[in-house]
Amino acid sequence: MAREDFSFVHTLRVRWSEVDMQGIVFNGNYLNYFDVAFTEYWRATGLPDVIAQSEAGLELFARKSVVEYHAPSRFDDLLDIGVRCAELGRSSLRFVLEIHRGDEHLISGEVLYVHANSRVLKSEPVPTSWREVLTAFEKAHAVLT
Amino acid sequence: MAREDFSFVHTLRVRWSEVDMQGIVFNGNYLNYFDVAFTEYWRATGLPDVIAQSEAGLELFARKSVVEYHAPSRFDDLLDIGVRCAELGRSSLRFVLEIHRGDEHLISGEVLYVHANSRVLKSEPVPTSWREVLTAFEKAHAVLT
Amino acid sequence: MAREDFSFVHTLRVRWSEVDMQGIVFNGNYLNYFDVAFTEYWRATGLPDVIAQSEAGLELFARKSVVEYHAPSRFDDLLDIGVRCAELGRSSLRFVLEIHRGDEHLISGEVLYVHANSRVLKSEPVPTSWREVLTAFEKAHAVLT
Amino acid sequence: MAREDFSFVHTLRVRWSEVDMQGIVFNGNYLNYFDVAFTEYWRATGLPDVIAQSEAGLELFARKSVVEYHAPSRFDDLLDIGVRCAELGRSSLRFVLEIHRGDEHLISGEVLYVHANSRVLKSEPVPTSWREVLTAFEKAHAVLT
Repeated sequence: MAREDFSFVHTLRVRWSEVDMQGIVFNGNYLNYFDVAFTEYWRATGLPDVIAQSEAGLELFARKSVVEYHAPSRFDDLLDIGVRCAELGRSSLRFVLEIHRGDEHLISGEVLYVHANSRVLKSEPVPTSWREVLTAFEKAHAVLT
Repeated sequence: MAREDFSFVHTLRVRWSEVDMQGIVFNGNYLNYFDVAFTEYWRATGLPDVIAQSEAGLELFARKSVVEYHAPSRFDDLLDIGVRCAELGRSSLRFVLEIHRGDEHLISGEVLYVHANSRVLKSEPVPTSWREVLTAFEKAHAVLT
Repeated sequence: MAREDFSFVHTLRVRWSEVDMQGIVFNGNYLNYFDVAFTEYWRATGLPDVIAQSEAGLELFARKSVVEYHAPSRFDDLLDIGVRCAELGRSSLRFVLEIHRGDEHLISGEVLYVHANSRVLKSEPVPTSWREVLTAFEKAHAVLT
Repeated sequence: MAREDFSFVHTLRVRWSEVDMQGIVFNGNYLNYFDVAFTEYWRATGLPDVIAQSEAGLELFARKSVVEYHAPSRFDDLLDIGVRCAELGRSSLRFVLEIHRGDEHLISGEVLYVHANSRVLKSEPVPTSWREVLTAFEKAHAVLT
């Protein structure tokens, strides 16, 4: 895929503290970047944010993460993080993410979230309103094919 | 799998800074835990460490990470991180990891490393001596079946 | 001061992700090390931990931190972190910390905490029982002079 | 001081991973914020960046940090970080920083850097060209009084 295949792109700059002795971003930091970009994606959809979800007692919890490192990013790089909702299950939401630096595709990944009761961590159906908003958001941003 | 299926287990305690507003370890921190446990695994094998590798110009680089979150860990938890070399490719090493808290299995994951030239990040064969040491290390720690 | 001047010492190992491109621990990480050592100090005193404090609605909040960097620490270093309660105010507790690697004194610092109501962050007196325990703990560990 | 007293202000948003169980930014993260803002200050001056410094073998190393926590910041807050060069010594540079959220002054701090030889960490004079640039930069941004 390319940067253009994403419904949403968030750009951030690599911080000094995120780079290791090999001069490249420590691999664990990409899940933090994914999280930052996901927060901005969610804001763009207009859906209730994590604070509102928490008050309602139903939140998203990460269930699985995958990161593939194609090429390293370095200190001060400007990274474009593409986020796309790839699948809506009964109680799960799968997001696909990619990190690009200009024309270079550095990182691929995905995060699977489960919509669950905050106290007992029992999965609950994704609200119908969320489904509608996310589907519309992805359609509105879809590349014509 | 269970804690006993691992050739090596490293125990660490969850830090305050690693726990988020949901009261659970932020998902990105597990890759850091995996890295800490992998460092201790490698030390236990007696193979040249990352500093020695760096001086030789041939290092391990993460190529892919997977984390599955079965149950959350919390502040001050003592976590047992099992590490096992699951596959030795021509230039790649695949490690399987699990995190347990007592009898509870919280996290599963894997990290695929590539042995590569530090400057050009071109893959290079895993040295025969490493293969021998890793195979012997896993055998020595294997659960009898 | 020397390692021996501390009522309590916690030892930890520098993680790969904590070291920067200069090959030394990123300066911001020392406040995390201070926090980890403080948690272990507090555990050793037997006083109610942060979770119990939180349930009671009265917690410690950092009010000021100072870190002086005398010499850098590096990947895989074993660091001894000395913690000492240096001052008990009406609602504040001042802790002095030092980091040593063997005989080398690398870092000095202090953290000033305020005992405060969790919701409104208004300072509240340090409980008398805490005062007694902390004073006794420091005396019991004091170097004879 | 107020936001207006700073020659340079960098704005960033608090990340989910930076907030702790108390619902506030973990205290150690402010030194990371200071570092990010300092990097942007330095970029704005046009002086050689840390990569160029490293190649020249003369870099800035943190010698002392102070952080005062007046009020907490929370998830998703937009923080304005003011940076000002407050003192130029023979081989040291002292920076004063403040963090504001809108009209609220949350954090004060300072970082003292030493200009030093990268290999032996021996202090070296601040180059005359740096002095000129920093003095001019601060003057150009000074609030008229």
